[in-house]
Amino acid sequence: MRFCQSFMSELYRHIGADTDVPAGDIGVGGREVGYMFGQWKRLTKLFNGILTGKGLDFGGSLARTEATGYGCVYFCEEMLKAKGNSFAGKTVVVSGSGNVAIYAHQKAAELGAKVVAMSDSEGFIYDRHGVNLNTIKQLKEIERKRIKEYVKEHKDAQYTEGCSGIWNVECDIALPSATQNELDGEAAKTLVKNGCIAVAEGANMPSTPEAVKVFLNAKICYGPGKAANAGGVATSGLEMAQNSQRLNWSFEEVDKKLRQIMVDIYTASSRAAEEYGTPGNLVNGANIAGFMKVAKAMMAHGIV
Amino acid sequence: MRFCQSFMSELYRHIGADTDVPAGDIGVGGREVGYMFGQWKRLTKLFNGILTGKGLDFGGSLARTEATGYGCVYFCEEMLKAKGNSFAGKTVVVSGSGNVAIYAHQKAAELGAKVVAMSDSEGFIYDRHGVNLNTIKQLKEIERKRIKEYVKEHKDAQYTEGCSGIWNVECDIALPSATQNELDGEAAKTLVKNGCIAVAEGANMPSTPEAVKVFLNAKICYGPGKAANAGGVATSGLEMAQNSQRLNWSFEEVDKKLRQIMVDIYTASSRAAEEYGTPGNLVNGANIAGFMKVAKAMMAHGIV
Amino acid sequence: MRFCQSFMSELYRHIGADTDVPAGDIGVGGREVGYMFGQWKRLTKLFNGILTGKGLDFGGSLARTEATGYGCVYFCEEMLKAKGNSFAGKTVVVSGSGNVAIYAHQKAAELGAKVVAMSDSEGFIYDRHGVNLNTIKQLKEIERKRIKEYVKEHKDAQYTEGCSGIWNVECDIALPSATQNELDGEAAKTLVKNGCIAVAEGANMPSTPEAVKVFLNAKICYGPGKAANAGGVATSGLEMAQNSQRLNWSFEEVDKKLRQIMVDIYTASSRAAEEYGTPGNLVNGANIAGFMKVAKAMMAHGIV
Amino acid sequence: MRFCQSFMSELYRHIGADTDVPAGDIGVGGREVGYMFGQWKRLTKLFNGILTGKGLDFGGSLARTEATGYGCVYFCEEMLKAKGNSFAGKTVVVSGSGNVAIYAHQKAAELGAKVVAMSDSEGFIYDRHGVNLNTIKQLKEIERKRIKEYVKEHKDAQYTEGCSGIWNVECDIALPSATQNELDGEAAKTLVKNGCIAVAEGANMPSTPEAVKVFLNAKICYGPGKAANAGGVATSGLEMAQNSQRLNWSFEEVDKKLRQIMVDIYTASSRAAEEYGTPGNLVNGANIAGFMKVAKAMMAHGIV
Amino acid sequence: MRFCQSFMSELYRHIGADTDVPAGDIGVGGREVGYMFGQWKRLTKLFNGILTGKGLDFGGSLARTEATGYGCVYFCEEMLKAKGNSFAGKTVVVSGSGNVAIYAHQKAAELGAKVVAMSDSEGFIYDRHGVNLNTIKQLKEIERKRIKEYVKEHKDAQYTEGCSGIWNVECDIALPSATQNELDGEAAKTLVKNGCIAVAEGANMPSTPEAVKVFLNAKICYGPGKAANAGGVATSGLEMAQNSQRLNWSFEEVDKKLRQIMVDIYTASSRAAEEYGTPGNLVNGANIAGFMKVAKAMMAHGIV
Amino acid sequence: MRFCQSFMSELYRHIGADTDVPAGDIGVGGREVGYMFGQWKRLTKLFNGILTGKGLDFGGSLARTEATGYGCVYFCEEMLKAKGNSFAGKTVVVSGSGNVAIYAHQKAAELGAKVVAMSDSEGFIYDRHGVNLNTIKQLKEIERKRIKEYVKEHKDAQYTEGCSGIWNVECDIALPSATQNELDGEAAKTLVKNGCIAVAEGANMPSTPEAVKVFLNAKICYGPGKAANAGGVATSGLEMAQNSQRLNWSFEEVDKKLRQIMVDIYTASSRAAEEYGTPGNLVNGANIAGFMKVAKAMMAHGIV
Repeated sequence: MRFCQSFMSELYRHIGADTDVPAGDIGVGGREVGYMFGQWKRLTKLFNGILTGKGLDFGGSLARTEATGYGCVYFCEEMLKAKGNSFAGKTVVVSGSGNVAIYAHQKAAELGAKVVAMSDSEGFIYDRHGVNLNTIKQLKEIERKRIKEYVKEHKDAQYTEGCSGIWNVECDIALPSATQNELDGEAAKTLVKNGCIAVAEGANMPSTPEAVKVFLNAKICYGPGKAANAGGVATSGLEMAQNSQRLNWSFEEVDKKLRQIMVDIYTASSRAAEEYGTPGNLVNGANIAGFMKVAKAMMAHGIV
Repeated sequence: MRFCQSFMSELYRHIGADTDVPAGDIGVGGREVGYMFGQWKRLTKLFNGILTGKGLDFGGSLARTEATGYGCVYFCEEMLKAKGNSFAGKTVVVSGSGNVAIYAHQKAAELGAKVVAMSDSEGFIYDRHGVNLNTIKQLKEIERKRIKEYVKEHKDAQYTEGCSGIWNVECDIALPSATQNELDGEAAKTLVKNGCIAVAEGANMPSTPEAVKVFLNAKICYGPGKAANAGGVATSGLEMAQNSQRLNWSFEEVDKKLRQIMVDIYTASSRAAEEYGTPGNLVNGANIAGFMKVAKAMMAHGIV
Repeated sequence: MRFCQSFMSELYRHIGADTDVPAGDIGVGGREVGYMFGQWKRLTKLFNGILTGKGLDFGGSLARTEATGYGCVYFCEEMLKAKGNSFAGKTVVVSGSGNVAIYAHQKAAELGAKVVAMSDSEGFIYDRHGVNLNTIKQLKEIERKRIKEYVKEHKDAQYTEGCSGIWNVECDIALPSATQNELDGEAAKTLVKNGCIAVAEGANMPSTPEAVKVFLNAKICYGPGKAANAGGVATSGLEMAQNSQRLNWSFEEVDKKLRQIMVDIYTASSRAAEEYGTPGNLVNGANIAGFMKVAKAMMAHGIV
Repeated sequence: MRFCQSFMSELYRHIGADTDVPAGDIGVGGREVGYMFGQWKRLTKLFNGILTGKGLDFGGSLARTEATGYGCVYFCEEMLKAKGNSFAGKTVVVSGSGNVAIYAHQKAAELGAKVVAMSDSEGFIYDRHGVNLNTIKQLKEIERKRIKEYVKEHKDAQYTEGCSGIWNVECDIALPSATQNELDGEAAKTLVKNGCIAVAEGANMPSTPEAVKVFLNAKICYGPGKAANAGGVATSGLEMAQNSQRLNWSFEEVDKKLRQIMVDIYTASSRAAEEYGTPGNLVNGANIAGFMKVAKAMMAHGIV
Repeated sequence: MRFCQSFMSELYRHIGADTDVPAGDIGVGGREVGYMFGQWKRLTKLFNGILTGKGLDFGGSLARTEATGYGCVYFCEEMLKAKGNSFAGKTVVVSGSGNVAIYAHQKAAELGAKVVAMSDSEGFIYDRHGVNLNTIKQLKEIERKRIKEYVKEHKDAQYTEGCSGIWNVECDIALPSATQNELDGEAAKTLVKNGCIAVAEGANMPSTPEAVKVFLNAKICYGPGKAANAGGVATSGLEMAQNSQRLNWSFEEVDKKLRQIMVDIYTASSRAAEEYGTPGNLVNGANIAGFMKVAKAMMAHGIV
Repeated sequence: MRFCQSFMSELYRHIGADTDVPAGDIGVGGREVGYMFGQWKRLTKLFNGILTGKGLDFGGSLARTEATGYGCVYFCEEMLKAKGNSFAGKTVVVSGSGNVAIYAHQKAAELGAKVVAMSDSEGFIYDRHGVNLNTIKQLKEIERKRIKEYVKEHKDAQYTEGCSGIWNVECDIALPSATQNELDGEAAKTLVKNGCIAVAEGANMPSTPEAVKVFLNAKICYGPGKAANAGGVATSGLEMAQNSQRLNWSFEEVDKKLRQIMVDIYTASSRAAEEYGTPGNLVNGANIAGFMKVAKAMMAHGIV
């Protein structure tokens, strides 16, 4: 707390609702954001949206926890839609069992898919009936236990030590949502061979460069994290908008706007990919679209 | 005007759209708010929402006049709903004939109830056909006359000297909307005995502590002013939101949001009452819910 | 660019999102606004809505280009509606072929009218089948050619040298959207004689004072530019609102709000005309309504 | 008072101790400066030197009243010194009888000269024994009477109707300290013919262009008002310095610094006159020296 | 330290070098001022004189410790001078042995007087050879012992239990510098009877109202604390002046200015006493002079 | 100029007269400071002392050019004085011929010494009659020629190629004022052997660590650059003080204060050296005194 207050005592003159709005990151969660917000309010007498990830009692937004997972699925749905396809009836593998993985699972299920495998840092489970999300939530959010406990309750499910094996599970759609570099070239080849038609990254750069090449060459749908997991950042933006409007949107409103943002990101990436000669290559598309937006604004603002 | 300007010349450095936003109160109405806003604008060059209760020409909100009366009825409707009941077909007594009483009457009537008695500081009228609101508005808002004039036009109605007798009128729902301590223990007992099922306070603390006890013991619906007449303050918040968004909402939008806020206040109070072991006791519920919201935010903000 | 930056280096201390928000004007388009915005951002570290007419990449609004033309037709539609009439099935003459004229044409056509004549600074075309808007856009927005080229493609259409002759074309509705004083007393008489029932100005003061008198005497619908072409300024206001809310509205939302604003302007003007004894005279109405709004706010703000 | 307060309510954002520091002028004396300072203090909570000419109780400087008159004589003394001469034993004519004239007289007398004539707007007195300054002060500062009353007390003195005749009085030094254009070409010729060796202007531009030419051609010492009456402005600067230092200098310190400033002005003007080819021509010198100081600073600050 | 920092986190927006400049008081010494200054510097990035009593390493002034004692003697010297008298050769009693008493002794001795008695809260010493100040400093500033130890080293001196007896010591001048109400009516009569010609208060209100009457009736010199012990506050002002000038004055300069201030206070009080009909009554004089200075400034600043 | 302006457009929010006051350094001279000051003034409307090294027309200080050289000699004089010695009658070698060297020579000569050798980057001259400073100034400041030209005019003088040989010239005092590491261990031994009694550094670290050891071991006076060439920085402080006081001190005043500062630096360093057990070792003394001042202030300001 002292550190947060002291940090804000210096930071406060460099940020502002219309200047820079920091969000939490590794090691800076709701508690730390609260302490920093308290110090800001005290020093400036301003009660406004200069940080995101705030508590619901003082300006935070609903649906932040769900944002990255939901967003990843929304993005994936757009990729599928472009090929006349959808989540409905698909078999899905979601690596990880944190916020991203749990809510990616939830949304995928809502859209009609069956998630058959999830993992934690020690191993993965496979449940051909579909992984029971309530059990996962109970284990991970409340009891803070390992995922292998899952098989105690679900006798048909199997637990396998080690995480990388999860990509051997046959699936239509893979949502790597655990950690960096969790999906290598070999895993990618297996996925493709097994008929996987779409990969959307919930984690930051979970696919190695080799894996990315495999996906692009196979011309399956591939949504790089830069675009596909932007849901968290997007919801920070929505928190800022709610603060500016002095309104708290309902869960449904935030979710609806989040979905629209993911659709827009997909559209922008997809169009840029096409326009610059690599249709379908969303890696190029996301890079180009992002770069062009910043570059155009910089050009428009003049030499400094 | 000079006083308002001089007052704002000091106040201006302590308030702000994101700091503190004062509203009018006794003796400070639209005129005074206008003078203070003019001085603020002049000193700071800012045209923004640092006061509420502003004129419609410079940032005020529609439905402010109606807000407390409407809000009181919305709150009461929620209490009834929780018991599977509603305003429809009910007989209602509304004490008072100011803004709160008039618009409580109007909204109750819209929801299907019949208001059979209203009062002013000298006496009350009883009209078994239902009090004619147009006559009341004409008498009170335009002609500024006493309520006893009502019986001149409505021959079936009766006028009684003194205000306290109004609670002897049989009714399903009582909305004390006149003044402090207007409803004492005796009156409360009479209401309960007469089969009154709900009391919602439009005035500030119109029921004496004894009366409150009677209501709570009888386990009828009782909505204390702290919660039930929050509609005015709520609309100040909505005025701030409109200013922040640079939009003027239509009467319907303000009304709809006002209703939602009253529903939310009811829900929060009701839940808190239940959670802390006194289900249905909205006095406890409102106090606890209010305290918890502030306390949680303070805890989250850290020691100062 | 240097000039814009230098200008903003002084201007920045006099403007602000809640103080004054300048927009571009003759010679100051999107490029200049961008340079000024860039310098503002640099000097103040604020990224907010202190200018309107910004690029879409940094806070600009959709539908700005269309705003004046659309707004003019919306206003005219209201005038017609008040007489139980509408654009549907009407023959329309729109002078000019710039942004205002093109989008007035487009909206009039959407509402069911047929635009039979348009002009540029050298002459006008008449196409009894209805002027083909795509051809006009191609000629004017892309090829930057003269309007007389139109007849090359549309053999039934006729081109006439000189602009003033356009008012001899028989029409139900005239939308002068070219330039100042383009419609004089004689032209007005011709229009009235030919059965024109409504004139709404998309340009600034296109009708001479004599022409205005003719319209008012004939008691046809006449929407002066002050009211009828307020759509551009209105959309600046909507851009500010979007900036304040940190949202970008869709084209449809901006359009819908624009329409509502034009309806409100019509209503306010019309009511003021009636209230001050000249029903139907929107020249008086617009002047009075505007004056009253400012005057009331000034009175409310107190002597400075 | 209301006007001063209202004026400062707008002005306060444009001035500052390091920005612009206004002083009083015609119609704005100590009283008005006090009211404006009070409003500044109130609005900004700052008690600092943002105005000059303040009362001695809140930051004003001693010797302001005397500053212009004293300064004029100091400047003249420098001109004389450059020719190996001084005020000692000289006969002096001082036109006017306001602050400038009275304190020019006082200082000239201190330096050993005899002032034999003074005037007001109706006429002038001549006293071959030297005008008695105490009588003048009594008449003008306390009794607010005409100068012709002087001769009642001083029997040897003569009063003459009309002001211009004063320049016919034989003198070594003339200090025109009454008003604009009070000394024309003819008067100048008379002065020169009578052996006048120095003219220093206490008023603003009291000598007509013809008179100036006469002085320059005659090569007598001529100190134009631009330089010779800068003592008032200089003391504003000294008031600012005292405010910045949070010290009040004694009368002697202010006087000493004032003298040094007048010496420096003389030196700068004299040097510039020489450097640019017109030695002794202080009209050129003062213009050039002032222009060069501003121009050099502007060049050094770069293009804006 | 935490408290000082937290306190300044709120206070910082209300103070400023040109707004209000707090100084320490009971329980707030150099250490606390340092902590508060550190927090100010951190929050505002300003290193300026917003507090007085700062350490010498960051803007404090020399001669603060000595200021009240020295100032008291300077004031007394002025009172004596007005009667053609001085400290030279006088016998002096100084009650107390803290900063005020020690430096009053030191300065009185420098001016040629002999201090024969001093006290602490338990008793007083009498040394007919003159109290040895070095011994007192050693005992009180370094060894922190009781004053009765003095007689161990100085055999001719006598120690007496109890403080009030000190006023029985015959003296020309009494400087009560210990504490409130230490000198009552009886003591005053004794002093007068013993031929005391001057009393100047180094402490705050050491003389009871009865004692004050005795002094005024006896028409001896009496300098009330309000005026006579203003040296500490005066040096706070000098610290501010040094900060504004970015200079550190030498001990001699501060001392010289302090002396001048005390002389000015005496002069202002003495003149006010005379002007308002009670010549020599410095109680009246100090009150009137202080009131008039504030009142005149308030009048000059206008109605707020 | 563009760069300076652009740089200041960002820097302006981080500096201030009471925050940080940058000065020029390598490649940033008066011209650049002027451009930056101009931009500051433009952006903030403040005309105050936020940079040092300003032009004399807008707040610069006299004696800045001379400051380092003069200061070095003043420091040396103090070292000598402590040993009962002085510059009078001494033979001095000053390396270099820039600002530092020229004004060190000038001041040394004023104090009665004879400078017999100076150098530039190619060689040095020896003139047993004393180097003629006017010739040096003419060559270096006006004609921008090499120092070897000196011998053309002064036939008795000798020129030697290479700089290091200058330390072979016999002298009482050496003032290395050319560049880093210009005086090595060998040179130091030669100086000591030749009877040199004092070395004061005008350049930054001109003596190598070996040379420093030689001086300390020989116990001759040695003034390290950190202390001895602080005159430039000191004069920046004096420029700030003048700006704060709104006064321009005369050359003599600046010079006098500079001298006092150098005396104080010597005293502080000398005392610290003694206090910490290495009397006479000014290397230790300067380091310790500087560290202690900062450390004490930090301690006093509390933990941040």
